[in-house]
Amino acid sequence: MNTVSTNRGAGKPGRPRSQATRLAILDAATDLALAGGCVPTIDALATRAGVSRTTIYKWWPSAAAVLAEGLLERFHESIEFDDSLPVRTAVTRQVEALARLMTQTPAGALLRQLQAASASDERLSAALLARWLAPRRDRVAEHLARGIDQGTLRADVDVDLVVDVLFAPLYHRLVWGHAPLDDALARRLCDLVWPTIAADVSETTPTSHPSSRRAS
Amino acid sequence: MNTVSTNRGAGKPGRPRSQATRLAILDAATDLALAGGCVPTIDALATRAGVSRTTIYKWWPSAAAVLAEGLLERFHESIEFDDSLPVRTAVTRQVEALARLMTQTPAGALLRQLQAASASDERLSAALLARWLAPRRDRVAEHLARGIDQGTLRADVDVDLVVDVLFAPLYHRLVWGHAPLDDALARRLCDLVWPTIAADVSETTPTSHPSSRRAS
Repeated sequence: MNTVSTNRGAGKPGRPRSQATRLAILDAATDLALAGGCVPTIDALATRAGVSRTTIYKWWPSAAAVLAEGLLERFHESIEFDDSLPVRTAVTRQVEALARLMTQTPAGALLRQLQAASASDERLSAALLARWLAPRRDRVAEHLARGIDQGTLRADVDVDLVVDVLFAPLYHRLVWGHAPLDDALARRLCDLVWPTIAADVSETTPTSHPSSRRAS
Repeated sequence: MNTVSTNRGAGKPGRPRSQATRLAILDAATDLALAGGCVPTIDALATRAGVSRTTIYKWWPSAAAVLAEGLLERFHESIEFDDSLPVRTAVTRQVEALARLMTQTPAGALLRQLQAASASDERLSAALLARWLAPRRDRVAEHLARGIDQGTLRADVDVDLVVDVLFAPLYHRLVWGHAPLDDALARRLCDLVWPTIAADVSETTPTSHPSSRRAS
């Protein structure tokens, strides 16, 4: 399995003891936030992790940054799908995993609150974008790039747009609750997009680029 | 032009004088919210519109409800596209109009704040869903239904999902700012979806349902 970078070990790697401290801080932030539905204070974080504020600020610029990284770490399985899987399967599973995370764990309610709070908190917004959304988007983008390299996806796929189209509806439904985040959603989103982005006609429907057809 | 219902005149129609009062209240809510970036209080609304609180509560359950309806009314042009236009053109224009509304009017910042506030305000969330999002979604859905009736779109199109895929990325980009809400976005979103939902192969790319091909 091609494991994803979750920043665990990123930055200053430090000694094993430092690494354990880092993980304790990430866990403390995630536990407190999932229980309380908001970004914990630095003081609450320090107390829970049994470290000083100085230690936290040595590695992170804010409590929001710790939390965003802690969430990515806690739910890292939701973006770890084997590169030996067909691209469509790997991407579908990542969409499914986010839907499940939103509906079946306290992370759903927390993400809704954090997204809301970020509208009036620039630091939180930047932290969530850099340490939660971007690494998760990068992981899907890597799968799509793999598909382009393998010739199963068209070379001109707009990767950023496809990632938005596959994941934004989940955040939208999380916020408004106008339609269900059910198990079929991921498959239906991929069904909607794949015929357009696929170069390989055997998987989906014919495209207008027969010259780019290849065996799967 | 098939004008859209924006609740102007919905409910108790009243005498002309009542109608003028209703519109003054809607305008007051919208003006105050666009200037202040939040839902005005009932008192501020009453003062601005020169009416009593009782008059407002006669027609709406909350200030949030007035505001959501006022916004729909103020920006009604962004969902009014002629039913004589090809479906794809009408839908693309509605997506474009929302992107422009978000980037070129104060409604963008306001919508971001209202969406955020709705995470902890059930009444606001319900008002925005019922009086802003739903009527706008209904309008796109009507165009898509027209396409299905005309045979240019497949009969099995999942209308709710297509609406999410076309519009959720705009709200997502409005919140996170990770990618531009530019003029090309609407066209690119429709380009991504249309080959899958189109029954008419002459417009886009071939589908796997040759029996449903029709002349445009």
